[in-house]
Amino acid sequence: MNGPIVLLTDFGSADPYVGVMKGVILQSAPSAAIVDLCHEVPPQDVRTAALFLRASVPYFPKGSLFVCVVDPGVGGARQILWARTARHQFLAPDNGLLSWIEEPILERRRVANRKLWADRISSTFHGRDIIAPVAGRLARGLAPARLGPAASKTASLPWPSPRRARGRLRGELLWIDRFGNAVTNLRAGDVGARRSVVFRGRSLGPLRTHYAEGRDGTALALVGSSGFVELSVRNGDFAKRYRASLGDPVESTR
Amino acid sequence: MNGPIVLLTDFGSADPYVGVMKGVILQSAPSAAIVDLCHEVPPQDVRTAALFLRASVPYFPKGSLFVCVVDPGVGGARQILWARTARHQFLAPDNGLLSWIEEPILERRRVANRKLWADRISSTFHGRDIIAPVAGRLARGLAPARLGPAASKTASLPWPSPRRARGRLRGELLWIDRFGNAVTNLRAGDVGARRSVVFRGRSLGPLRTHYAEGRDGTALALVGSSGFVELSVRNGDFAKRYRASLGDPVESTR
Amino acid sequence: MNGPIVLLTDFGSADPYVGVMKGVILQSAPSAAIVDLCHEVPPQDVRTAALFLRASVPYFPKGSLFVCVVDPGVGGARQILWARTARHQFLAPDNGLLSWIEEPILERRRVANRKLWADRISSTFHGRDIIAPVAGRLARGLAPARLGPAASKTASLPWPSPRRARGRLRGELLWIDRFGNAVTNLRAGDVGARRSVVFRGRSLGPLRTHYAEGRDGTALALVGSSGFVELSVRNGDFAKRYRASLGDPVESTR
Repeated sequence: MNGPIVLLTDFGSADPYVGVMKGVILQSAPSAAIVDLCHEVPPQDVRTAALFLRASVPYFPKGSLFVCVVDPGVGGARQILWARTARHQFLAPDNGLLSWIEEPILERRRVANRKLWADRISSTFHGRDIIAPVAGRLARGLAPARLGPAASKTASLPWPSPRRARGRLRGELLWIDRFGNAVTNLRAGDVGARRSVVFRGRSLGPLRTHYAEGRDGTALALVGSSGFVELSVRNGDFAKRYRASLGDPVESTR
Repeated sequence: MNGPIVLLTDFGSADPYVGVMKGVILQSAPSAAIVDLCHEVPPQDVRTAALFLRASVPYFPKGSLFVCVVDPGVGGARQILWARTARHQFLAPDNGLLSWIEEPILERRRVANRKLWADRISSTFHGRDIIAPVAGRLARGLAPARLGPAASKTASLPWPSPRRARGRLRGELLWIDRFGNAVTNLRAGDVGARRSVVFRGRSLGPLRTHYAEGRDGTALALVGSSGFVELSVRNGDFAKRYRASLGDPVESTR
Repeated sequence: MNGPIVLLTDFGSADPYVGVMKGVILQSAPSAAIVDLCHEVPPQDVRTAALFLRASVPYFPKGSLFVCVVDPGVGGARQILWARTARHQFLAPDNGLLSWIEEPILERRRVANRKLWADRISSTFHGRDIIAPVAGRLARGLAPARLGPAASKTASLPWPSPRRARGRLRGELLWIDRFGNAVTNLRAGDVGARRSVVFRGRSLGPLRTHYAEGRDGTALALVGSSGFVELSVRNGDFAKRYRASLGDPVESTR
């Protein structure tokens, strides 16, 4: 492995938790490049973490190791999982966080070899005591076979596909970003050239290609940077203006 | 180029946008040192980004490349600009973000060579699709002449100079920092030894040299770390106490 | 020194202050690895910084240099301190921030040699003008004896020990983390097998070993990742639910 170690957590920034994980990684792998992907996943929100991971993986170099800690089951029976695609490696609790990666997963192992963990394991911070030491060792060249046995049955999250009903395609808001753009689970092909995007009974018109097609302050729909239809207000905040929340329905209609 | 790549954006921390830009940079330049300057520029606030850049550039090593993405015009007609001073390089949308750097700009180019961009260009995330791949290539030694043609006419923001009226010098609040200190556009010479700083009709007295000259809880004015007069409350929050907002007027008076 | 430089401040993320310190460090030590421990220490809260440092130091590699800037006395008479344990080095204002590190401090010096500082020293940002340049030079191999004279008398914060009263042990809430877990100053031995933890007259039962022993939404007490008793709600937010604040009392009772 010689790519960066990429961290994705729900630890936020108020506490030294992320910093401490980096300290542990650097103990094993002093020259590892560590990159923060995002630490503001809402607490325990595995779905959002899975979504962020899906949207981000393609942009990282071959050999990157994604270290993901959104872990509502910490201290319970869930296991820690290692997985590998043709380009990347992953460490995460076995809770479905890796479900939505678009690259095929070629190998999965349980991180069961306690010799690789810290000497003392807390009941609340396996990111520090199990995942970080293992990440550091993988970065230094540990053979994945030493992690533990192959994992055959792992947790999985169903992808939230839009549903068809009465001639309409009904999707939902998957994420609202810093700018108030609402990312949906609709794709360009779900809307098509002749259809409109409808949010709360209000038509946002057909898909636009650029923000610049709307005037400042006008709501519009376009294909966002991760390939999904996004609801936006040009140089404004769609979510605030329309009080949009995660899970809100959005429709595509003729 | 062998200094760090320094990132300045309005992307905040809630989304994986900054992390993804780093992934793209590392694909071209695996050993680049990437430094976060600030990602909490208010959304689309080019002026604040320009101010932060001005205040920060002198403290970075020769050879640093500043990658600035505050981009209200993304997807529209604005171009991406590369610029160079004797010590530093810059990439930014051509929207005035580079206007207030104090070092003379020696060369400007349009980032027009599409061979250096990503294969697919989204309409909303040129930081990822244009600026990051170009930054990575510059870090790996790309000759700037390959970026595109020289840029002769570029966007510019006027510096908000204080104005003189009826024997007073009237400035404004340019920024309010995390501690509630209000940074003005007045300089020490604008206030002078015999004058007072006045905010909302309230005199904060002459310029002090240290917080310690005020008692805890007392408002005072001093020269802040970027050379401008700042309004502060020692170990308190000036902006909260006096409900100060960006753009509020401040005066220097005998 | 060949470990990372680890930054702990109350600078938050809204301003470029942390980024600028990194720029200054990289000017002296271009290949230094810089790690963010935490920048969201509440403004001027030296106690919380001391607590974070105590909890984090053991997890960082030998040779790490901790650069701590929580500095209510900036510009006043307080000095800057360098300290060394068998494994780590520290730079911090002399305000007690280093008081709670568990490793014995073997050497302390005042950072008094102005040749190592920036040319111009602002009155409000000694992190940039004194501490960062010195950190960069230490990272590049400066002999600590060159920093300044040995420091014999330094500021110290008393550790907030629980107190015994009427057969109960009374502690307090030291910190509330991102997840709403309330970290107390009680240790497992302070509670013991037969006792209960009581918060605001409400028994949280005996110490649990894992979150999983509580049902979702039930308050419980367990030993957290830094060795102290924590009050939590499994997959919920204890502090929000019970309106817990820093300093609130917590008791251990039969």
